[in-house]
Amino acid sequence: MTLSARDGLFSGMFARGGAAPEVSDAAWLAAMLDVEAALAGAQAGIGLVPEAAATALEEACRPEFFDLAELGCRAAPAGNPVIPLVAALRERVKPELRRFVHYGATSQDINDTAAMLVACRALAPLLADLSACADACARLAGEHRGTVMAGRTVLQHAVPVTFGLKAAGWLRALDRSRAELAELDLPVQYGGAAGTLSVLGERGHEVLPRLAAGLGLAEPVLPWHTDRTPVARLACALGMASGTLGKIATDVKLLAQTEVGEAAEPSTPGRGGSSAMPHKRNPVGAMSVLACVQRVPGLVASVLAGMVQEHERAAGPWQAEWETLSELLRLTGSAASWLREVLEGLTVDPARMRANLDATRGLPMAEHVVARLGGTPEARGLVDAACARAVDEGLSLREALAAPWLREALPAAPGVSLTPEELDAALDPAGYLGSAGIFVDRALAAHLNPPG
Amino acid sequence: MTLSARDGLFSGMFARGGAAPEVSDAAWLAAMLDVEAALAGAQAGIGLVPEAAATALEEACRPEFFDLAELGCRAAPAGNPVIPLVAALRERVKPELRRFVHYGATSQDINDTAAMLVACRALAPLLADLSACADACARLAGEHRGTVMAGRTVLQHAVPVTFGLKAAGWLRALDRSRAELAELDLPVQYGGAAGTLSVLGERGHEVLPRLAAGLGLAEPVLPWHTDRTPVARLACALGMASGTLGKIATDVKLLAQTEVGEAAEPSTPGRGGSSAMPHKRNPVGAMSVLACVQRVPGLVASVLAGMVQEHERAAGPWQAEWETLSELLRLTGSAASWLREVLEGLTVDPARMRANLDATRGLPMAEHVVARLGGTPEARGLVDAACARAVDEGLSLREALAAPWLREALPAAPGVSLTPEELDAALDPAGYLGSAGIFVDRALAAHLNPPG
Amino acid sequence: MTLSARDGLFSGMFARGGAAPEVSDAAWLAAMLDVEAALAGAQAGIGLVPEAAATALEEACRPEFFDLAELGCRAAPAGNPVIPLVAALRERVKPELRRFVHYGATSQDINDTAAMLVACRALAPLLADLSACADACARLAGEHRGTVMAGRTVLQHAVPVTFGLKAAGWLRALDRSRAELAELDLPVQYGGAAGTLSVLGERGHEVLPRLAAGLGLAEPVLPWHTDRTPVARLACALGMASGTLGKIATDVKLLAQTEVGEAAEPSTPGRGGSSAMPHKRNPVGAMSVLACVQRVPGLVASVLAGMVQEHERAAGPWQAEWETLSELLRLTGSAASWLREVLEGLTVDPARMRANLDATRGLPMAEHVVARLGGTPEARGLVDAACARAVDEGLSLREALAAPWLREALPAAPGVSLTPEELDAALDPAGYLGSAGIFVDRALAAHLNPPG
Amino acid sequence: MTLSARDGLFSGMFARGGAAPEVSDAAWLAAMLDVEAALAGAQAGIGLVPEAAATALEEACRPEFFDLAELGCRAAPAGNPVIPLVAALRERVKPELRRFVHYGATSQDINDTAAMLVACRALAPLLADLSACADACARLAGEHRGTVMAGRTVLQHAVPVTFGLKAAGWLRALDRSRAELAELDLPVQYGGAAGTLSVLGERGHEVLPRLAAGLGLAEPVLPWHTDRTPVARLACALGMASGTLGKIATDVKLLAQTEVGEAAEPSTPGRGGSSAMPHKRNPVGAMSVLACVQRVPGLVASVLAGMVQEHERAAGPWQAEWETLSELLRLTGSAASWLREVLEGLTVDPARMRANLDATRGLPMAEHVVARLGGTPEARGLVDAACARAVDEGLSLREALAAPWLREALPAAPGVSLTPEELDAALDPAGYLGSAGIFVDRALAAHLNPPG
Repeated sequence: MTLSARDGLFSGMFARGGAAPEVSDAAWLAAMLDVEAALAGAQAGIGLVPEAAATALEEACRPEFFDLAELGCRAAPAGNPVIPLVAALRERVKPELRRFVHYGATSQDINDTAAMLVACRALAPLLADLSACADACARLAGEHRGTVMAGRTVLQHAVPVTFGLKAAGWLRALDRSRAELAELDLPVQYGGAAGTLSVLGERGHEVLPRLAAGLGLAEPVLPWHTDRTPVARLACALGMASGTLGKIATDVKLLAQTEVGEAAEPSTPGRGGSSAMPHKRNPVGAMSVLACVQRVPGLVASVLAGMVQEHERAAGPWQAEWETLSELLRLTGSAASWLREVLEGLTVDPARMRANLDATRGLPMAEHVVARLGGTPEARGLVDAACARAVDEGLSLREALAAPWLREALPAAPGVSLTPEELDAALDPAGYLGSAGIFVDRALAAHLNPPG
Repeated sequence: MTLSARDGLFSGMFARGGAAPEVSDAAWLAAMLDVEAALAGAQAGIGLVPEAAATALEEACRPEFFDLAELGCRAAPAGNPVIPLVAALRERVKPELRRFVHYGATSQDINDTAAMLVACRALAPLLADLSACADACARLAGEHRGTVMAGRTVLQHAVPVTFGLKAAGWLRALDRSRAELAELDLPVQYGGAAGTLSVLGERGHEVLPRLAAGLGLAEPVLPWHTDRTPVARLACALGMASGTLGKIATDVKLLAQTEVGEAAEPSTPGRGGSSAMPHKRNPVGAMSVLACVQRVPGLVASVLAGMVQEHERAAGPWQAEWETLSELLRLTGSAASWLREVLEGLTVDPARMRANLDATRGLPMAEHVVARLGGTPEARGLVDAACARAVDEGLSLREALAAPWLREALPAAPGVSLTPEELDAALDPAGYLGSAGIFVDRALAAHLNPPG
Repeated sequence: MTLSARDGLFSGMFARGGAAPEVSDAAWLAAMLDVEAALAGAQAGIGLVPEAAATALEEACRPEFFDLAELGCRAAPAGNPVIPLVAALRERVKPELRRFVHYGATSQDINDTAAMLVACRALAPLLADLSACADACARLAGEHRGTVMAGRTVLQHAVPVTFGLKAAGWLRALDRSRAELAELDLPVQYGGAAGTLSVLGERGHEVLPRLAAGLGLAEPVLPWHTDRTPVARLACALGMASGTLGKIATDVKLLAQTEVGEAAEPSTPGRGGSSAMPHKRNPVGAMSVLACVQRVPGLVASVLAGMVQEHERAAGPWQAEWETLSELLRLTGSAASWLREVLEGLTVDPARMRANLDATRGLPMAEHVVARLGGTPEARGLVDAACARAVDEGLSLREALAAPWLREALPAAPGVSLTPEELDAALDPAGYLGSAGIFVDRALAAHLNPPG
Repeated sequence: MTLSARDGLFSGMFARGGAAPEVSDAAWLAAMLDVEAALAGAQAGIGLVPEAAATALEEACRPEFFDLAELGCRAAPAGNPVIPLVAALRERVKPELRRFVHYGATSQDINDTAAMLVACRALAPLLADLSACADACARLAGEHRGTVMAGRTVLQHAVPVTFGLKAAGWLRALDRSRAELAELDLPVQYGGAAGTLSVLGERGHEVLPRLAAGLGLAEPVLPWHTDRTPVARLACALGMASGTLGKIATDVKLLAQTEVGEAAEPSTPGRGGSSAMPHKRNPVGAMSVLACVQRVPGLVASVLAGMVQEHERAAGPWQAEWETLSELLRLTGSAASWLREVLEGLTVDPARMRANLDATRGLPMAEHVVARLGGTPEARGLVDAACARAVDEGLSLREALAAPWLREALPAAPGVSLTPEELDAALDPAGYLGSAGIFVDRALAAHLNPPG
């Protein structure tokens, strides 16, 4: 029995969730065997090989019959694991049927189709976790549609937003990233030694639709041994999903700072403790998401750089895809699983949000006051001056705006005037949220009814 | 007048074609001004600003009114070029209309929408060059549907293919890569200081569809200041297109090697000469494609890594996109333009292809002989032995197969026998092309009738 | 006159400081001309070309004689700018001396040596800025050797540190990064068409030490046309320096957050303002550093991937280095220049540091209390319980530890007891700084006396 | 017992050689235990903990006592594997000594020091393989100092070189890359919760030199929890070594092409066979080197991007280093091991080299003829014309130069004339090797007596 990637020292962080077991060596082996069996089945369906061969392969293609470590060992001089696998497979089939094992195929046909199968199987739990993340964001967006907090740009307080709007932004990014992954075309590969399927005479192409149907994959127009767009698109979609997961984790990490304290990860015993500091509650989930996604862009670049492959089948860049693709699926999957836990259990503190917003003494409302004063350059000049004074003297914006010097300045800015009630309204964050609520509604609607 | 990226010492290689001028600083400035004008127009259309403001901006938003270098200089302390641009723009508008300049917008709204506009304008020539590349491949695939050549895997001769099939593989990859770029959603950005459009009360979102229509861009569900999926998807699609261009250039470069000589780039005076070697004819086009695309994966990784942006607007990763996006468009565009020249003028030498194929003395046909002998392990053992002898003694496969020792071995392999005529057929590359022709037809059909 | 990279729309952010002008196209042209002149000079010194040729080239190799845009234009079909440059240079020399122009050289000899010269010239201001950054950190480390603040791990308050220690950490990283750049070997390139210097008979290698001395560069053991370790090492050292600059900028960005407010960038009119929010003071410097360095790792990866070059001179990856190297120098240089401004004018607020530390009500001192209580598991269990209660009930750690339940628990933990004075001492951050001061001293000593 | 990375399906290609087992999870665990034991030993040496504690830890710190998979499982909520490891370690120590386990340390101290130890142990076999590669190149360079072959630039024949010079170029790059790795400083980490070693009072720093000596690592000036220059420099040096390995493998791959055939990898049964083509002899070694190194630049970029770490200890980028560093060591190590086999068994075919050189009918000697004719523009014009005619009419350069039209042209080029003997000499590749031999000697000398 082989050890999956889940059992390693660091796999708690980097191999969480359902994708990791689907990219283990055992899963690759199972996928390769599924491909060999499906190939024979597809060929038997159109009379290219005897039914007996298909049946024999269906029986022989069971992972427990093969020794993964030995295959790996014999793969080295051969250049890929399919060559020893086919040799071992032939041993398990009656001599007269052996020629129909791996019939007309080249190693890359099996390896590539298995890669697509592995991806397909790893994407299922990953997509489920992304959906759960999006659902959690939708819930947060709805619940906090009116929860006022400081908008932050360049890590400084800007005008107020709602936590609902923030969650709606996360939701939209998740929905887009998920759609990229859900819409991928994962094609089978079958071209034989150099992409002509020459062993099968002129009927080789007829195998393609049957093989695709048998494995639940797509049918390519022609073999893509050195056209790596399917792999690159998969890698890119994983890269985009990782970026989105990282953005959300960054926000959680920043909101959970000791000095901010507006959100906290779910707390369970043993989670986020520190070996040296008894009082710590570390945002372990956000940290783990960020650790996973930090590693993704470099892997995507490797896949893209590896698209430059020679002639009919390549010497190096193709082989470099195998583990890289597994890593991309594993890391993105782990990040999605971590973020799901974070979002589903996220504690939001509206009171702290409001308190933090108030700590800037109304200054983020300056833009609103300018607008209420007519939005003229004069109004802006005036409010700028009030802001400067507020900053210098530690006043609130309300105090600065109410100071005598302002009244004196007002005549110079005709039409610029606010009653105390108007000033209250101008300084109320909840009255200055613009389209925030409507944007939340739009994101929720798009989530519930994604475009066709 | 500003110097475009085309006029540099290295821009002949890296800024060829129509994309480069569309990503110049002048093009960015023009796009920013177009956005400011379109914004006022969209707002006037629903009564948020006076018609006079829209008209004034339409008149003021002309690149020749602004000093690019001065804007760049004043952008440094501000953190982006939009702040000084808006200041300069207000100077060109009557005082009473100044408050309607950049109304309700934040710098990033203008910068992001301008980026999408720049991308949209740079993609037009790039897509045209990719189409021309694909058309050239389609022509080559059709013309050489029956041109036999050595298939090469791991840079060694494998079974024969046709040059038509090789060109069909290029075609398919180009069609896929082009479709990725053609289908991109490029949305406008408009969210104000923190994504709420608070300055516009509750009507801000109504501006979005009008702004999008005015600029020929897409309407987002909500502001995407820190949801960088649109930018990442653009970068990834450029990365995939670059990979495809690099794959084709690699094949051309390898086919043009002195020892291979099966294809040559178009030759014009001064092209591909060497400063030291009078006899050289360098594949300058393929080399330039490869020089361009070598730089792309790292840039895509930068964009993906930069998706991790803080809160409502980010401190660093967003700004890092500006020049990176221009580079990606410029380099992919330059590569496409170079490859178009290469493919449209490619000289193919079928005689040399056949001569190279024959240089391996029939060995690549061994697989076919095995198949004709029944495909049994015995047949393969026999042919393996013949191959080994052919390699050792410098014989052709035909000679090795005809040698007396083989006849002696035959009784041991009952049913394994070929007449001289059958042997001729088994050794004829043109008779061992499998589905190559059908794959060419499929690629051409998909090119002419892309899926809806 | 050519426009340097400094005059662009985005160059305020990405082309600050002294490195940018040294990597402009004009600087590259000047370097190429310097190399051609130095080559003739070195050759004349050992009698390989007439003195008259060296003199003629010294006179001819002046940038103002050449039209950069025209050279760039003519470089495209040639594959590099040296070919048209040599042609133009020959035009400026008497016919009988023309054969001594670019004598025995290949384009790459000039381009590579010019690249090293460009790097050398761009590194000078970059190293000066890094030194100034380090000096500023040394000053901060010394001044704030005793300024207590919250240590922060995973963005949560940990045990106290000093701002001096934080600055000492920055200092050490800067000193190391700077040393990597200062110790680089930048070799001349001179090998002729294929690295044999065949045109010069057997005396070619004698030119190398003289050429190196003439240009202030290093002498290579042999030509390195496709051994790109010198370029890769330069790129890596720039990558490390950028990483260090980004780390420091991140700390500044986080310290400057509205909710933290422990450090602020120097404020000057027009700096860090927002187009929409009159009250904002953005950390423009830290943001700009981060924008620059975000782009660097991808560029380093491009250079490393490009080391895989074919045979004697490569088709693509070499050419890809030209602009990439310039970008790396420009971006790292700009980041260093920005950070210098930030560090030299950094405002530190010790009172706010202390207030933030106190906001966690003594909890970060829990580790110290455990230690003072003997460090036993029992002590830790006790303090853990006190921490939990403090968190739950909003008490200070002192209050929680003084509560009656603790006294009751104490007997169960024999030997675990603190007097009120001991408790005060245990809870005083200034008494729990360990080796912080000594580490500051060690970093300062290493800065003043770097190892030989 | 845990399965090492060597036993996987793809590990024959990516985990060859001695580095892979040194980066397995079991090796990490062993290293962590070594660090905990060494820490107690260093502390006992200066009286900070009782000798009994050091002895107890020395006995307890044995990998067989711990369940790796369980530790990995419990590491997830904790955020790193050290926390559960320390808990398990304490269980194995007498209660009264438990407080001295992991004394004053934070998880990162152990993890980082273990990482340096893992690196140190994995570098030993990697350096040995690089040395063996260099020795093999030195032998090839010496043996083939006079073996003439075509120099190839942009994959076209240029002037002749020797295979000795090519091998000398490989040698020099290997020596430089190896030196980068051999000279690395790998420091211990020990700073406690926030880098102050506060638990140890003011004596914490005294532990550093003893801990370093105990583990054979370097002593840092101060803790480097968020100064990742040591890790980045290691990653960069591995990136450079990989680039060098890839360059050499590329040359081998190209020389081994069917049409070139100048070098071949060692052939052993089962090596380089193809599942579909009985005649194939794939360059499996070069291919495997290229597959490994293709993946390295993206990983280096990840490490560099991850240098941007927050405050005293980071939330994400630090954790992302763990597996990335292992991958870098494993892949570079595997590539070095593969290349060693390739170079030690490389078959060189001088006759084929000469035949390929002659296939261009003397054209690469054109530069030499120009030189022998005086190197004047007239001479070059003449030879250019002869080359053109040779290409057009399929003549050798000798034939073209001997043609009557040349004699007629000669008077127009006074002083331009060669006797038949001079022409023979001008066209002899062995007489046009310039400093090739001297460069070989210089590379060998530098290999035998490296500087410093």
